[in-house]
Amino acid sequence: MKNYSIGIDFGTLSGRAVLVRHADGAELASAVMDYPHGVMDRRLWDGTPLPPDFALQHPQDYLDVLADVVPRVLAEAGISAEEIAGVCVDFTSCTVIPALADGTPLCFLDTFAHNPHAYVKLWKHHAAQPQADRINAIAAQRGESWQKRLGGKISPEFMLPKVMEILECAPEVYEAAELFIDAGDWINLLLTGEDHRSACAAGYKGLWHHEEGYPVDFIKSLDPRLADLIGKKIPDSVVSVGSCVGRITEAGAKLCSLIPGTAVGASIIDAHAALPSVGITDPGKLLLIVGTSGVHIVLGDEEHDVPGMCGVVRDGVIPGYLAYEAGQAALGDHFDWFVKNCVPAHYTAEAEKAGMNIHKYLREKAKKLAIGESGLIALDWWNGNRSVLMNTALTGMMVGMTLTTTPEEIYRALLEATAFGTRMILDNFTENGVPVHEIIAAGGIAVKDELMMQIYADVTGREIRIAASTQAGALGSAILGAAAAGAFPSVKEAAAAMSRVKEQKYIPDAAAHAQYEKLYAEYVCLHDYFGRGANDVMKRLKDIRREAAEHRK
Amino acid sequence: MKNYSIGIDFGTLSGRAVLVRHADGAELASAVMDYPHGVMDRRLWDGTPLPPDFALQHPQDYLDVLADVVPRVLAEAGISAEEIAGVCVDFTSCTVIPALADGTPLCFLDTFAHNPHAYVKLWKHHAAQPQADRINAIAAQRGESWQKRLGGKISPEFMLPKVMEILECAPEVYEAAELFIDAGDWINLLLTGEDHRSACAAGYKGLWHHEEGYPVDFIKSLDPRLADLIGKKIPDSVVSVGSCVGRITEAGAKLCSLIPGTAVGASIIDAHAALPSVGITDPGKLLLIVGTSGVHIVLGDEEHDVPGMCGVVRDGVIPGYLAYEAGQAALGDHFDWFVKNCVPAHYTAEAEKAGMNIHKYLREKAKKLAIGESGLIALDWWNGNRSVLMNTALTGMMVGMTLTTTPEEIYRALLEATAFGTRMILDNFTENGVPVHEIIAAGGIAVKDELMMQIYADVTGREIRIAASTQAGALGSAILGAAAAGAFPSVKEAAAAMSRVKEQKYIPDAAAHAQYEKLYAEYVCLHDYFGRGANDVMKRLKDIRREAAEHRK
Repeated sequence: MKNYSIGIDFGTLSGRAVLVRHADGAELASAVMDYPHGVMDRRLWDGTPLPPDFALQHPQDYLDVLADVVPRVLAEAGISAEEIAGVCVDFTSCTVIPALADGTPLCFLDTFAHNPHAYVKLWKHHAAQPQADRINAIAAQRGESWQKRLGGKISPEFMLPKVMEILECAPEVYEAAELFIDAGDWINLLLTGEDHRSACAAGYKGLWHHEEGYPVDFIKSLDPRLADLIGKKIPDSVVSVGSCVGRITEAGAKLCSLIPGTAVGASIIDAHAALPSVGITDPGKLLLIVGTSGVHIVLGDEEHDVPGMCGVVRDGVIPGYLAYEAGQAALGDHFDWFVKNCVPAHYTAEAEKAGMNIHKYLREKAKKLAIGESGLIALDWWNGNRSVLMNTALTGMMVGMTLTTTPEEIYRALLEATAFGTRMILDNFTENGVPVHEIIAAGGIAVKDELMMQIYADVTGREIRIAASTQAGALGSAILGAAAAGAFPSVKEAAAAMSRVKEQKYIPDAAAHAQYEKLYAEYVCLHDYFGRGANDVMKRLKDIRREAAEHRK
Repeated sequence: MKNYSIGIDFGTLSGRAVLVRHADGAELASAVMDYPHGVMDRRLWDGTPLPPDFALQHPQDYLDVLADVVPRVLAEAGISAEEIAGVCVDFTSCTVIPALADGTPLCFLDTFAHNPHAYVKLWKHHAAQPQADRINAIAAQRGESWQKRLGGKISPEFMLPKVMEILECAPEVYEAAELFIDAGDWINLLLTGEDHRSACAAGYKGLWHHEEGYPVDFIKSLDPRLADLIGKKIPDSVVSVGSCVGRITEAGAKLCSLIPGTAVGASIIDAHAALPSVGITDPGKLLLIVGTSGVHIVLGDEEHDVPGMCGVVRDGVIPGYLAYEAGQAALGDHFDWFVKNCVPAHYTAEAEKAGMNIHKYLREKAKKLAIGESGLIALDWWNGNRSVLMNTALTGMMVGMTLTTTPEEIYRALLEATAFGTRMILDNFTENGVPVHEIIAAGGIAVKDELMMQIYADVTGREIRIAASTQAGALGSAILGAAAAGAFPSVKEAAAAMSRVKEQKYIPDAAAHAQYEKLYAEYVCLHDYFGRGANDVMKRLKDIRREAAEHRK
């Protein structure tokens, strides 16, 4: 009778639920809701100005999503809550909430309602760069074993720099916090009343290792006040992805309209959840997420050191395998930034007249350009570089503008820049012993944007297959929910039944690939000049910018 | 009774006349008219597509301006044509017209009406770069004496590369042309029936020297077909600025509504005409033109080699002195490009709502930024680099963009980039023995844009005075017209009576200057990296762009 599971996917700007049939992965209903507060990066909801590099969210938004989307998918599919076997949440990461032991976020308390540090630090909150720098320096000095697994150093997007930022900038928040918890695990705590941390977020963003656990001594060495962090504020009970972390309680049922006793799967990072959704449960197949940011995940049997990789975690995505992860800190975000800040009024008007979404309108114009005709090259670092350089102090760069440069030329240069960034990551995997035989792409852009995906095929020189689902994360979570409920003997078998990939393939054009080789050579040269220390102008400008902003206050 | 003169200024997008009183330089009337065809850079007026780097104009536009603006200033001032002593034309340069001996432009003939090479090649037409490269290479081999005077090499904006481009790409146009003539001299030919070339255009853009004349042997060595160029298609009778080239004929009078017999002064380049208008008739004072492009002119007694300078000509601007010229190939053009291509619809709407010009609106927002707060640095090379690098293959560059970068931050970065470009030119003069004690700025932006001029003062660390006239070129031409008519014994005395400078001064702020020193150091580093051969990516991208555009046809 329990033949369905629900996946709930919390993204950067919205949350969604998908109700999926176990038999064939059919998505019977889906519902999405934008976060009312969105991303707070210039001001807090109450108007409090935020320093540069902040990116906060309001946890009430997540509860609003939960209360909204789950009942909507049940109603739309005409399925009762009794028929749901399991549920699983995937979330952006590391998106961290300081909370009381029962899960109440500190920002819900009057004392902390106006303190930015009591709010959710979104994955792309980058203000903890000084803490990350210190962590990396001290770890290098001590020769910490986790460094190799994380490509040499960690970014401020990790759990530890964010917690240290709170400790140093708002010690009263650190003191009051009984838990620092990944937002995905936080939802599970509210649903089940139990605080089990998922191996996925803990392994990729929390310095946890399946054999070594947390580097407790190292963390203490950073600041004596961190002595109570691991084991207390961050429990060291970590569970494998695909396992069941508990059952929905009475209180949890009220939050999401499911019934008590429904199985809840270990949470997973949003990008990683797409892996089972496209049926990747073996080594050699690369998942390429083309969304707000970019993620590249490939399974492996053996452990290799890949410089500048984001992480490698055993059992963190598919039980039994290592999963290597790399990524681009901004991908679609570049195009959204462009559309918000750089599209002239007459383009907007023409797009409206043609009844076209502005992205679609720009892509139609960009499609008509020959490769190289714009004369532009950009570095896709508007949100820093996550792989291969792992440096959030890097920023965007564009070269080649003339007085006849058009908006669609700039737009296309941004599309191409993200493809060059992906190419750089693939080359880095291949050159370091992690083979990639096949690419399967997922994410909003992969599913609908033919120009973009053809550019990716032409730039990488590889065939690309596409996820059949437009909500691969949510589908993957539903697969994990079904596995957690015991509807299948394993994640592998759940994925075999429920995953879906399109027939359509993007095949690289030989002439286009040859032309892109020339442009990619220029990209590599600029990448290395700005990224490998020849000219640290990006970091210096960021420092000047930070001082100028502080000075003006 | 003849107490007035008229200056006629032909700019990049429009032409204007100013009627000026000899006694005090008062501008009694002015009139402006936009060129109906503007700049043709993507297509000819008939739709013929143009190759990259083309910038053409239609000579009928100049005649329309002449017929329109002169009678308008007479009428507006209530002055009769009989009261006008002299007239003088200033023009963009080198803007060249292939014509018959009587001045009829070849493009007026049916045979050539659809041939782009028969049209006016505007100063910023850059398609003759291959010809310029060849000229420079051969001249270097031969050790031509003009090279030092022109900062080492000439740009495709000069007369000779443009003529060679016609010879090579449209030999039938070269053959049919009885004259290749600077547009300023062309107007004088039509007004007076006499073809005297001005020392200004000939000296700065035509390889002519007051002692050596034209490098005839060198020109012949480039191509035997050029043997008839100097002396025939380009007469070698060259006259000093400030002199009278003739009197208006009956035919000329019909073109401009002045009376036959009115004195006509030797034409002058538009930027250079501003020198007398602000009273610069002595060494050590630098004229800074802040307009569509940027021009920097300083008088000197002695001849020095200044690398990357545009030129040094004796008697080319003020009789008796050397005038050193440097420049920025695009200045205000950057901001116009930005406004046309990069301002989002909601900004346009807000500016309209506030009843503000969009430039004004952006400047208001940009003004609120602290120095360095944008985190951006740009290279002001959207139209190549005229000085210090003299390379039109260079293109724009911007670094430092993040997902929170705003349009006003980009706009301000462009303002600052042009100020850094000017600073680079000042430093280059000073370091090479041409002292600059005082700066006087003229041009549309200098007169009205306080934010911009304060940035220039803060970046250069020097006081800046401003021309009182908003049409310094036209006022300067009127002064030269008065001198040509003999209303004053010399240009110096005409300028003493008729020039005008504002009381207001921009004074550098010490803290702002110190902050800009940091940013300028970054500018210099990027300037040298992209401009001095470490990475010729800009040139390679331009080559790829040209091939891609050709391939697509």
